[in-house]
Amino acid sequence: MARIVCFGEMLLRLSSPARERLFQSDKLDTNFVGAEANVGVTLSRMGNDVSMVTVLPDNAIGDACCDTLHKHAVETKNIVRQGERMAIYFLETGAMIRPSAITYDRKYSAFSQAKGDIFNWNEILKGADWLHLSGITLAVSEGAQKASLAAAQAARKLGVKISFDCNYRPSLWTGREAEGIKIIKDVAAHADLIFGGDKDVQLLFGISRNAENPTVSFQAAAQEFFKHCKHVSHICSTNRTVISADSNTLAGFIASRDGFAQTKSWDLFNIVDRIGGGDAFAGGALHKLASGAPLQDIIDFAVATSAVKHTIPGDFNITTEAEVSAMLSSSGGDVKR
Amino acid sequence: MARIVCFGEMLLRLSSPARERLFQSDKLDTNFVGAEANVGVTLSRMGNDVSMVTVLPDNAIGDACCDTLHKHAVETKNIVRQGERMAIYFLETGAMIRPSAITYDRKYSAFSQAKGDIFNWNEILKGADWLHLSGITLAVSEGAQKASLAAAQAARKLGVKISFDCNYRPSLWTGREAEGIKIIKDVAAHADLIFGGDKDVQLLFGISRNAENPTVSFQAAAQEFFKHCKHVSHICSTNRTVISADSNTLAGFIASRDGFAQTKSWDLFNIVDRIGGGDAFAGGALHKLASGAPLQDIIDFAVATSAVKHTIPGDFNITTEAEVSAMLSSSGGDVKR
Amino acid sequence: MARIVCFGEMLLRLSSPARERLFQSDKLDTNFVGAEANVGVTLSRMGNDVSMVTVLPDNAIGDACCDTLHKHAVETKNIVRQGERMAIYFLETGAMIRPSAITYDRKYSAFSQAKGDIFNWNEILKGADWLHLSGITLAVSEGAQKASLAAAQAARKLGVKISFDCNYRPSLWTGREAEGIKIIKDVAAHADLIFGGDKDVQLLFGISRNAENPTVSFQAAAQEFFKHCKHVSHICSTNRTVISADSNTLAGFIASRDGFAQTKSWDLFNIVDRIGGGDAFAGGALHKLASGAPLQDIIDFAVATSAVKHTIPGDFNITTEAEVSAMLSSSGGDVKR
Amino acid sequence: MARIVCFGEMLLRLSSPARERLFQSDKLDTNFVGAEANVGVTLSRMGNDVSMVTVLPDNAIGDACCDTLHKHAVETKNIVRQGERMAIYFLETGAMIRPSAITYDRKYSAFSQAKGDIFNWNEILKGADWLHLSGITLAVSEGAQKASLAAAQAARKLGVKISFDCNYRPSLWTGREAEGIKIIKDVAAHADLIFGGDKDVQLLFGISRNAENPTVSFQAAAQEFFKHCKHVSHICSTNRTVISADSNTLAGFIASRDGFAQTKSWDLFNIVDRIGGGDAFAGGALHKLASGAPLQDIIDFAVATSAVKHTIPGDFNITTEAEVSAMLSSSGGDVKR
Amino acid sequence: MARIVCFGEMLLRLSSPARERLFQSDKLDTNFVGAEANVGVTLSRMGNDVSMVTVLPDNAIGDACCDTLHKHAVETKNIVRQGERMAIYFLETGAMIRPSAITYDRKYSAFSQAKGDIFNWNEILKGADWLHLSGITLAVSEGAQKASLAAAQAARKLGVKISFDCNYRPSLWTGREAEGIKIIKDVAAHADLIFGGDKDVQLLFGISRNAENPTVSFQAAAQEFFKHCKHVSHICSTNRTVISADSNTLAGFIASRDGFAQTKSWDLFNIVDRIGGGDAFAGGALHKLASGAPLQDIIDFAVATSAVKHTIPGDFNITTEAEVSAMLSSSGGDVKR
Amino acid sequence: MARIVCFGEMLLRLSSPARERLFQSDKLDTNFVGAEANVGVTLSRMGNDVSMVTVLPDNAIGDACCDTLHKHAVETKNIVRQGERMAIYFLETGAMIRPSAITYDRKYSAFSQAKGDIFNWNEILKGADWLHLSGITLAVSEGAQKASLAAAQAARKLGVKISFDCNYRPSLWTGREAEGIKIIKDVAAHADLIFGGDKDVQLLFGISRNAENPTVSFQAAAQEFFKHCKHVSHICSTNRTVISADSNTLAGFIASRDGFAQTKSWDLFNIVDRIGGGDAFAGGALHKLASGAPLQDIIDFAVATSAVKHTIPGDFNITTEAEVSAMLSSSGGDVKR
Repeated sequence: MARIVCFGEMLLRLSSPARERLFQSDKLDTNFVGAEANVGVTLSRMGNDVSMVTVLPDNAIGDACCDTLHKHAVETKNIVRQGERMAIYFLETGAMIRPSAITYDRKYSAFSQAKGDIFNWNEILKGADWLHLSGITLAVSEGAQKASLAAAQAARKLGVKISFDCNYRPSLWTGREAEGIKIIKDVAAHADLIFGGDKDVQLLFGISRNAENPTVSFQAAAQEFFKHCKHVSHICSTNRTVISADSNTLAGFIASRDGFAQTKSWDLFNIVDRIGGGDAFAGGALHKLASGAPLQDIIDFAVATSAVKHTIPGDFNITTEAEVSAMLSSSGGDVKR
Repeated sequence: MARIVCFGEMLLRLSSPARERLFQSDKLDTNFVGAEANVGVTLSRMGNDVSMVTVLPDNAIGDACCDTLHKHAVETKNIVRQGERMAIYFLETGAMIRPSAITYDRKYSAFSQAKGDIFNWNEILKGADWLHLSGITLAVSEGAQKASLAAAQAARKLGVKISFDCNYRPSLWTGREAEGIKIIKDVAAHADLIFGGDKDVQLLFGISRNAENPTVSFQAAAQEFFKHCKHVSHICSTNRTVISADSNTLAGFIASRDGFAQTKSWDLFNIVDRIGGGDAFAGGALHKLASGAPLQDIIDFAVATSAVKHTIPGDFNITTEAEVSAMLSSSGGDVKR
Repeated sequence: MARIVCFGEMLLRLSSPARERLFQSDKLDTNFVGAEANVGVTLSRMGNDVSMVTVLPDNAIGDACCDTLHKHAVETKNIVRQGERMAIYFLETGAMIRPSAITYDRKYSAFSQAKGDIFNWNEILKGADWLHLSGITLAVSEGAQKASLAAAQAARKLGVKISFDCNYRPSLWTGREAEGIKIIKDVAAHADLIFGGDKDVQLLFGISRNAENPTVSFQAAAQEFFKHCKHVSHICSTNRTVISADSNTLAGFIASRDGFAQTKSWDLFNIVDRIGGGDAFAGGALHKLASGAPLQDIIDFAVATSAVKHTIPGDFNITTEAEVSAMLSSSGGDVKR
Repeated sequence: MARIVCFGEMLLRLSSPARERLFQSDKLDTNFVGAEANVGVTLSRMGNDVSMVTVLPDNAIGDACCDTLHKHAVETKNIVRQGERMAIYFLETGAMIRPSAITYDRKYSAFSQAKGDIFNWNEILKGADWLHLSGITLAVSEGAQKASLAAAQAARKLGVKISFDCNYRPSLWTGREAEGIKIIKDVAAHADLIFGGDKDVQLLFGISRNAENPTVSFQAAAQEFFKHCKHVSHICSTNRTVISADSNTLAGFIASRDGFAQTKSWDLFNIVDRIGGGDAFAGGALHKLASGAPLQDIIDFAVATSAVKHTIPGDFNITTEAEVSAMLSSSGGDVKR
Repeated sequence: MARIVCFGEMLLRLSSPARERLFQSDKLDTNFVGAEANVGVTLSRMGNDVSMVTVLPDNAIGDACCDTLHKHAVETKNIVRQGERMAIYFLETGAMIRPSAITYDRKYSAFSQAKGDIFNWNEILKGADWLHLSGITLAVSEGAQKASLAAAQAARKLGVKISFDCNYRPSLWTGREAEGIKIIKDVAAHADLIFGGDKDVQLLFGISRNAENPTVSFQAAAQEFFKHCKHVSHICSTNRTVISADSNTLAGFIASRDGFAQTKSWDLFNIVDRIGGGDAFAGGALHKLASGAPLQDIIDFAVATSAVKHTIPGDFNITTEAEVSAMLSSSGGDVKR
Repeated sequence: MARIVCFGEMLLRLSSPARERLFQSDKLDTNFVGAEANVGVTLSRMGNDVSMVTVLPDNAIGDACCDTLHKHAVETKNIVRQGERMAIYFLETGAMIRPSAITYDRKYSAFSQAKGDIFNWNEILKGADWLHLSGITLAVSEGAQKASLAAAQAARKLGVKISFDCNYRPSLWTGREAEGIKIIKDVAAHADLIFGGDKDVQLLFGISRNAENPTVSFQAAAQEFFKHCKHVSHICSTNRTVISADSNTLAGFIASRDGFAQTKSWDLFNIVDRIGGGDAFAGGALHKLASGAPLQDIIDFAVATSAVKHTIPGDFNITTEAEVSAMLSSSGGDVKR
C-alpha cells in the first residue's frame, strides 16, 4: 500500500436531516470533511497510509476534526493548530427537482488566513509515494496557493508523485478567473495524475463539453493536458448527467499518453448523498494507479468507488477495496448474508 | 405584492416518521396545517402579505398553531380563539404500493362548532386584494358554510377578488352530496379564480375525466365554470397520475375566458411528501395571477411550485419565488454551491 | 380463521438507521424477528390464531422478544425459556449498488443449543390447523433438526397440515451440503405446502433457473416436489430480479397437482426494507390457502403481501388482509383520506 | 395469580420530549394510557391475568392502543370498538419549578359517548377475582357512570371483589361537585378496597389534610370510609409532598377494619416521569392484597411500586414483582451486573 | 403593553444533545439567540410589542434567524441584511462538576463588521417606550459601540427610556479593559434602568462582592450607579451561587433612588439549561417595571422569570406572564391538569 | 508522556436511551468499551501513547471497535483478529431507586475462546512504560488467565511496570471463588500499582469494609497487599456510597509503602452515566503516578477524573488533563465562555 499526503482545507459540514429544508427543524447533522480529506479517507479505508496536512484552530472544534480523521486512520501529526475558526458549510440535501444547496461560511478560516510558509514540506513528504492537491485549495487564499506550489515543488524534488484535482468551482473564482487559470496551470505543470472535469477543461483550454459524445471532448482535453503538463502520465475525468437531485448517471474516462479507457454509464438512482462523489472517484483512481493497475481497471474501480459514495451519508467514502471490487464483479444489490 | 386573506380550518397533523406504519414506533412528527393555511404559507413565503382567519381553542395547542403561522410570517390577529379542541389528522406516509393513509379526528373542533357570524368580514377584508376560500371548509359545518358565503359576499362588495378551490373530498360529503353541490356552486358563483380538479367537475357538471386526453375534459369543465360563474376570470386544474406512493406525474391547465395554457407533464419521482401539493399549486397560481403574469407563466409557475412541495416534509411549501423560478429555468437538480 | 403453530429461531435484529453504514453513527434500531416468526406475524395480523414455538433465554432480552410477539397478538406460552443467549443479526441496510449486509452472531444461541426433545408436540399441536417449519431451522443445529422432524411427525399423526419453506441459505450449509439436502428432503416429505425458491430447487433436484422463462423452471421443480413428497398439495415460489438494493421486481408462482397460476411481475421500486419479503410471501400464501381460496387468488395475494412488506421498516409485515386486498384491487398509491 | 378486570377510558398521551415546552420542537412521544389501564399493566407485569374493558374507535388509533395492551399481556377481547375518536391528552413534562402541564382533548371520545348498557358484565366478570374501577370514569359521562355502577353491582352479585380508586380530579367535576360526591359514594359503597387521597376525603367527608401529621387525617378518613362503605375491608392512601417537578416525597398508608400500617417517607428525587405514579401505587397494593400479604407488606410494596414508576418514561409501570421486592430489600441504586 | 426595541448581535447556537461532550455524537441542536434577543423574546412572550435591531447576512442562515424571531412574534423589519456570516457559538452543556463550555466563532460576523451609522435610530425608535442595550454589544466592535451610543442618544432625545445590561464578560475585553470601562460608563450614563452584576460593579467601581452578605455589596454598587448615572431610576442585580452545573441558587436585588427590595434565595436544582438565565431576569424586570409594578413585585417576578428559563432548553424564555405569576403564588411543581 | 499497553476484552455496549427500560423503545445506543480499554482511553486522552491488546472477530463489528479506538488515538496494531463474535453487554441505565442493570452476552466471545499463547508479549511490550491488566480478564477464561500471567511475567522481565485493577465482580466467579483468589493473587504478585476495592480486599484477605471509617479498612488492606505483593509500590482504592442510581458519593485513597493520602468525599449528584467510573479512576491515578506526582496529587486527580466520567454518556472518559485539573482548582460548574 502507498504512503500518501493530502493537503487542503477541512470544513465542518452542518446538514439538515431527512431531506428537510435547512433549519426546518432544530437539528443538524455534523461531518468533518474537505475535498482532499475526502480523498484521504477513501485511500485510508482502502489500506493506504495517509497523512492529512491542513490548518485547524486549537479549540474543541479542531480537536473533534482530528478525532474524526483518527477514526478513519488518517494521521494528523502534520496538522498545524493555529488561527481562530474552522471553515463551515451548511448543506441542505436536495430531493427531486430541488437541488442540494450549500451555504459556505469558510471565509476567515484558520486555513485561509495561514501564511504560505508554515509547512516544512521536506519533512512532511519524506517517505511518501504521493502528494494529493486540489484546485479548491488554490482558490482559498494566497497563502494556500503558495503552500500548494511549495508542496508540489518539494514533492517533485523528493520524487514524490503528485495527484492534482483541478476541481474548478466557478463560485470560488468570481472576478479573478485569470488568476485561477494561471495558478491551476502552474500546479498542474508539476502533476503526474490530473483530475479534470468539464468545467476545468473549459476554463483552462477553452474546450467545451460535447454532450452527445463526451468521449470526444475528454480526449481533446486530455491532449491539452499532456501538451501543457510535462510530468503528467494520466488524466481522469467523469461525465455526470443530473436527471434530478436523486437520480444521476455517471461515466468515467482515463487517458495515459498512449492509452484510453472508459466505463459504462452507471445509473445512480435513489441517491443517498452525492457530496464527495468526485473526491471518491479521485481516491479510487489514485488507489488503483498507485498499485499499478491497468487503465481499464483504474477507471472502472474509480467510478464504482464514486458510485458507492452516493449510497453513504456524509462526504466520506467509508468503503473497503474488497467491497468496491465485489460491486464491480457482481450484478449487485442483493442482500449479503 | 398582494394582501391576501385565507379562511379555513387548521389541523394538527401527526405523522409517523421514516415511512413507518402509524404508531409503529413511539414518535410522531407534528405540523400545524390546513388546505387554506397551506395556500397562505406559500403566498407568504413568496412575499405576499397574508392574514389567516380561522378558529382555534384558547389553549397550548392553539398557541402553538399561531406560533407556526408567525414563523411563516402569516398574520394571526383575525383568528378567533374559542371552543374546546383543535382538529387533528393522523398521517401514515405511504411508500411504493402502500398509499399514504389519513385518519381524521376533526369532528367537534372549535372551527366546526363555531357559529357562522363570528367574523367581521368588513373589518377583516379591508385593504385586501384577494380572499382565498375552499370547498373543504364548506364540508365542515353549517357555520363554516355561512361564514364562507358571508366572506364571499363581503369581498364582492368591497372589491376584494375571490380565489376558490373547489377541493371536493368525497369522504367529507358522504350522504349529503346534493347539499355539497349546491353550496360549492353558490360560493363558486362569487369567485374570480377557481381551482377545480377532476372530482369537482364530475360532481358539479357531470363531466368525467378523459384519461387519454385530459386537456379535453379540462376545457369542457372550464366552459361550464365560465357559463355558471359570472365573475370568474380564470380556471386552474391539475392532472395527476399516481404510479405509486413515491412516483406521480403532474401537469397543469389554466383557462381564461379567451385563453388556455398547459404545462409539460412533470415527473415527480422519489416523492418526499405529497400532502399539500394541491394547495401549493393554488398558492403558486394565485401568486402569479395576482402579479399580472400571462397564462403560460402562471400555470408553469403553479406546477413548479407544487412540484417543489413534493420535496419538502410537511404540508407547507417553504419556498421563495426565486427558487421556483430557478427550477423552471434550469435543468435542475445539481448541487448549488 | 386458522390456528397455526410456527416453529423456529428468533433473533434480535440490530440495524443501522437511515441507510448509514453499520456503526457509522452510534444508534441501532432494534427488531425481534425470525423467518418463522415473520410468517407468524403476517398470519396473526390477518386474523389467524398463531402460537410461536422457540427457545429464548430467561433474561431481559428474551422477555422483550416475548413482548414483541404479544404486541402482534402471537401466543408465547409454548416458548421454552432456557439457555444463555439470544441469536443476533446486525443489518446494514443497503442503497443503490451497495447491498444490504447481514453479520450473523447467532452461534451458541439458546435455540441452537437446545436438545431436540424439549418440546411436547402432541400438546403444542392440539387443535392446530397448520404447522409452519423452515429450512433455516434445519441448518441451525442437530437439536433443531430433531425437533423439526418430531414436530412434522406429530403433526402428520394429529392431522395438522404442514407448511414448509425450504429457505436454503448456502452460507448456513457450507461444508455440509449433503446433510442439508437429506434433512430438507426428509422434512419436505411430510409437508402439504412447500415454498421453494431457485436455490432450493437447484440444491434438491439439480434444476437451475431459466432466467428467460422462470415459469418453465418453476414447473419443472414443482413436478419434482410432487414426485418426491407424497403429501404435498401446493408448491409456491417467487422469482425476484434485483436491479439494485432499492429496486427489484417480483413475480409469484403456485402449482397444485392439477393446476398452476402465476402473477404479473411487480415493480418494487424505492424499497424501504426488503428483509422478510419472502416470509411475508409465505404468510400471505398460507393465509389464503388455509381459507380455501383458488390458486390465482392465493398467489396474487401472496405476492401483494410480500410487496407491501417491502414498504415497512423491520422484518415484520404489519398489514391486514383488507389492506392487501385493497392494493390488489386499486391502481394503488394515492392518498387514502 | 389473580384474574382482574379493569374498566375505564384510555387516552393517547402525546408528550414533548426532553423537558421541552409543548411543541417547542416538532416531535411528540406517544403512549396509550389511562388510569385504570395503568393499574392493569402494573398487575399484568406482576403476573396477574388482566382484561381491559373500554371503548375504542374502530380505526388505526384504536388498533394501536390494542397492540399496546397486547404488548403488556393485557387481554382486549372485552373492548368495544365503536365511536369516532379516542381521547387524547397533551403532556408537557415539567422541570424544577415548572410543573408538568396537561391539556386534555378527551371530550366527545368514543368512551364518553358510549351508552351505559353496552357491556355484558356477567359475561365479562365470569371467573374474575377482582374488578378495578376509578372515580375518573365517573366524571367522564353519564353512560360511564351507569356502566361503572352496573359493573359494581354485577361484581357484587358474582362474588368478584371490587377495587375502587376515588381519584377525584377537581378539574373534571367543576360545577357539578354534588353529583360527583353522590356517584363516588354510590360506587364506593360496593367496594372491598378503596384508594382515597387527600382530595377525595375532603370532598366526601369534609376532612382536610393534616400536613404535620398526615397519619391522623388518613386514619380519620379511613374511619369514615369504614362507616359509610359496608363492604370495604382495606383503605389505602398516599401522602405526596411536591418539592419541585423533579423532587417529591411519598409515603403510603393502609388501614383495615382492625389494623393500620404506614411506610417511611420515600425521597423521589430526579423524577423521570411521575404521571401514573398513583395508578402504580394502586396496582402494587391490589397485587399484594390479592395474594394475601399482611398490611405492612402491602403498603411497603405499593409505595415501592409507585416509586419505581417515577423512574420510567410513560404512564405504564413496566416492572416485575421481583424487581420491586429487590428495591425494598436492598439499599438500592447500585449497578446490577 | 410596552413597545420595546432591542439592539444587539444574534448568534447561531449549536449545542450537543443530552449532556454529551461537543461532537461526541454527530448531531447538534440549533437555536438562534443573543443576549438582547433573549430579552426581546421574554418581553414578546409576555405580550409586549418588540422589535429586534441587528445585522444578519442575506442568506439562508439569516433567513432562518428571522423565521425564529417571527415565531416568537418579534418584529424584524429593522434588521439590516448585509455582510458575510452570522456569529456562531458552540455549546457543550455541562453536568455535575463539568461546566457548560462555550466555544465562540463570532469574529468577522456581519454584525461586528457593520459600520456604526447604518441604523436610522430616529425612525426605528419612533413610538417606542423602551430601548434595550447591553455591554456585550459594546465589546463586539467599534461600529457596535458607535451604534449603541447613537441609539442611546436618539432615545434620550425622543423620550424613549433606556434599559442597559452591563453584562461584562471578561473574556470579551481581554487586553482592553480600560476601553471597556469607559464605553460601558458612557452608555450607562444614558440609562434609566441598569442591570449590573458582581463583575460589572467590580469593573466599573472597584466594589468587590461580599459573599456573606451580598445585599451590602449590591447596595454599595447601586449607590455608585446612582451617583454616576444621572438618568437612572432603577438598578437590578442577581446573586448566583454555583453549586454544580446542575445546581445553583439565585437571588435578586433592586434599588431605586429611594427604595430597595430583594428576593428569597431560589433553589435551582436539576437545571435543564441555564444559558439565557440572566437575560430572562432582565426581561422579567423590564416587563414589570414598564407596567409600573412596585419594587418587590418587579424583583420577585424577575427572579421567577429567570428561574423558569432554567427549565427550558435553549436560550429563549418561552413563558407567559401568567405562568410566571402562577409559579410565584403557588408552592409550585405539581402537575397542572 | 508514558507508553502504556492495556490488555483485556472489549465489549459492544448496547444501552437504552433516556432512562428507558431496556427495549422500551426500538432504539439502542452503541459504545465499544471494556474495563481496560476504558483505562486506555482515559490515558490516551491525557496525552499518553496507548496500545490496546485484545481479540476481536474479523468482521464489521470488530472493524467498528477498532475505528472507535482509533478515534480516541489508541493504537490497534496488536489486536488479534480471529474468532466468531464480540462480547456484548446490554445496559439499562437506572434512575432514582431503579439501579442500572447489565445483561451480559459475553460468553463464547473471540476473546474468551482465544488460547493463552497467541500474543507475542516481548514484541508488544517493547518500549512500553506500563502494562495495565485487570481481574475481569482473569474471570473470562483459562486462556485469558494464561495470557495475563504471560504478559505480567514478560513485563517484569523487560522492566515494564505493571498496573493491576483487581476488579473483582462476584457474578463472574460464582462457584469458582477459590480459583479466582489464587489467580488474582498470582497476578497481583507482579504488580507495581494495585487498584483494590472493598470486594477485592474482602475476597483476598478477609478484611471487610468499615463503613464508619473507610480509611481504617483501606489501610489494613493496603498493608496486606504490601505484605503479599513484593513489587507493589502503590495501592489505590475508592469508597463509593450509593444513595440512588443518580446520586453517589465518592472518595479515594492511596497508600505507598511509607505514605498515605485521601480525598474529600465528592458529591456525585445528577449522575449522567456511572459505568466506567472505576476505570476512569484507575486511568487518572496511573496517569499521575506515571508522571511522578506526589500521593495527594495522584489521588485527588484520580477521583476528579472519575467524577468527570460520571458526567459523560458512555464508558469512555473523554477528558483532557487540563480539564480535570481545572475542576480540581475551581469551585466548578459555572459556564466557561
